[in-house]
Amino acid sequence: MQIVLIEGDGIGPEVTQAACRVIAAAGVQVEWIKGMAGAAAAERYGEPLPEQTLEMIRRYRIALKGPCTTPVGHGYRSVNVRLRQGLDLFASVRPVRTLPGIATPYEQVDLIVVRENTEGLYAGLEHEVTPGVVESVRLITRPAAERIVRFAFDLARQMGRRKVSFCHKADVMRLADGLFLECARRVAEDYPFIQFEEIPIDTLCMELVLEPRRFDVLVMENLFGDVVSDLAAGLVGGLGVVPGANYGTRYAVFEAVHGSAPDIAGRGIANPIAVIRSAALMLEYIGYRQEAQRIEQAVLATLKAGIGLTPDLGGDGTTMTLTEQIIHHLHAG
Amino acid sequence: MQIVLIEGDGIGPEVTQAACRVIAAAGVQVEWIKGMAGAAAAERYGEPLPEQTLEMIRRYRIALKGPCTTPVGHGYRSVNVRLRQGLDLFASVRPVRTLPGIATPYEQVDLIVVRENTEGLYAGLEHEVTPGVVESVRLITRPAAERIVRFAFDLARQMGRRKVSFCHKADVMRLADGLFLECARRVAEDYPFIQFEEIPIDTLCMELVLEPRRFDVLVMENLFGDVVSDLAAGLVGGLGVVPGANYGTRYAVFEAVHGSAPDIAGRGIANPIAVIRSAALMLEYIGYRQEAQRIEQAVLATLKAGIGLTPDLGGDGTTMTLTEQIIHHLHAG
Ligand SMILES: CC(C)[C@H](C(=O)O)[C@@H](O)C(=O)O
Ligand SMILES: CC(C)[C@H](C(=O)O)[C@@H](O)C(=O)O
Repeated sequence: MQIVLIEGDGIGPEVTQAACRVIAAAGVQVEWIKGMAGAAAAERYGEPLPEQTLEMIRRYRIALKGPCTTPVGHGYRSVNVRLRQGLDLFASVRPVRTLPGIATPYEQVDLIVVRENTEGLYAGLEHEVTPGVVESVRLITRPAAERIVRFAFDLARQMGRRKVSFCHKADVMRLADGLFLECARRVAEDYPFIQFEEIPIDTLCMELVLEPRRFDVLVMENLFGDVVSDLAAGLVGGLGVVPGANYGTRYAVFEAVHGSAPDIAGRGIANPIAVIRSAALMLEYIGYRQEAQRIEQAVLATLKAGIGLTPDLGGDGTTMTLTEQIIHHLHAG
Repeated sequence: MQIVLIEGDGIGPEVTQAACRVIAAAGVQVEWIKGMAGAAAAERYGEPLPEQTLEMIRRYRIALKGPCTTPVGHGYRSVNVRLRQGLDLFASVRPVRTLPGIATPYEQVDLIVVRENTEGLYAGLEHEVTPGVVESVRLITRPAAERIVRFAFDLARQMGRRKVSFCHKADVMRLADGLFLECARRVAEDYPFIQFEEIPIDTLCMELVLEPRRFDVLVMENLFGDVVSDLAAGLVGGLGVVPGANYGTRYAVFEAVHGSAPDIAGRGIANPIAVIRSAALMLEYIGYRQEAQRIEQAVLATLKAGIGLTPDLGGDGTTMTLTEQIIHHLHAG
């Protein structure tokens, strides 16, 4: 089986390498097709998201990706954003659950943030009306709204989730979020076996810190989703431990959503858990459900045992020791 | 001294009444000029924000306001939003600090959220391009950007705060948030004695749940500010206990930012703390600093003592007992 691997910048090569090892240890044989993106690609091809990388993913359909930096000052738009748009990866999914051994103020958080990935303020439509006056366009369309809400409900169904909360700001953006809300309500009717809830974005963000356990699947437009995904990650320990996935109709890209951490790059102490868990989501998606679950369980067991952890997790281990612990638990599990 | 009082809907009359009692007990004599807004005003005048209410505030400059409901289904825009825009109350301020006796996952949070109140997606510019396609305009202008950042730095200075964090999404809205960022940097140069920091909105929301103590004064555009204000409130117990203020060049409106809680309206058990603390901000603003501080201290002492608290705070008291406790501590303090 051939899958595209984008190692990315900074700690990217180290953490993606760890993920490849874990996948192999789980018994899934993959021939990795290496594509480039980020600062490394910009240096080599003069373009942080070279067309051949996009073509590669179009050909092999699936990619696993490390953190990619968008070099500043050249007018480049974000690699991540362009990748999603270029492949019509319309749904970004961030599953977030409380992890053993990671001290946070919250317990038993277990929610999934579904973010619309192609529209909203990310459409890139901006203009300077006159010097010092800029308008950005927030685009909401019925097809994209229906598609993302349907995706969220389908995900809820497949994952045995019981509630979908649709997040909006309809009292301010009456036309746009009014339209989105109308689409959400209509789609929700097709899923009478799943509870549906509507919640304004400000209320949601407050409730997430007051009582995160009351949420299950959350679905919303692009920028709200950007914010809520990261807020939710914070509830369980931050970007170093949460996986990310971007799904389209034809392609899917699984990625660590943390940065490239240039300060520790090459030192062998980067935490590979985010990309390993992203790899588990990937395996699940392509039909290796058992292997995916075994990897996820091995990560949880490793965190619980607390041996070989990297410094960001409070340990004195390395990328290597942590990866080996995970592989150890994979075989033991 | 004459000040406008807008009691608002639901529990509004009860909680604003409590605030008036506390102000009187603090020795500040106010002649309250009653104005109407919200559902009650809509019923009486066919308009939730009657022109005479706006005129009243324009005349007396200062208002204290309870929660106002915007009746749905009549095409009314939010009373709160229109009030801010109609009076050019360009800065919304939400001071948030950990309170004694209120159990939250966080300790020693002490930050101030400053929100631009007139532009962004709240400009109300939306249109349906074609059926099922809606564009909302997010407006950023240099004068408004400079004004709000300057306001935040001035506030920091006056309050003895040491850091201002400017929040943006400039890697996506390059023109708009690029402009805002440029304005922020320029204004920050005028305050070399206060630390300046730039932070993307998604990162901010994650950091706020991971490590809220690292923030001091936060400043940002309208919708980001809406979200962050409520998130911040959640860190210290929710909207029932945090004050709110809206400042313009000529007018200021101090308000409880919680809802009108129709389910408990009239039962005498509403928590008046948010509006009492808002009243303290009001007194501070109009030059009764000592009285303001005494009220704030009395609220803290009451929460610490834990006697007479309303049900939402875990007590079995009433609006009356809680108010009396605050007045008791005011006299004792
Ligand atoms: C880098 C940035 C443009 C991007 C986004 O906002 O989508 C990032 O925050 C993410 O979520 O992948
Ligand atoms: C009611 C709503 C339109 C309003 C806002 O978004 O400004 C509210 O959330 C607030 O913060 O006062």
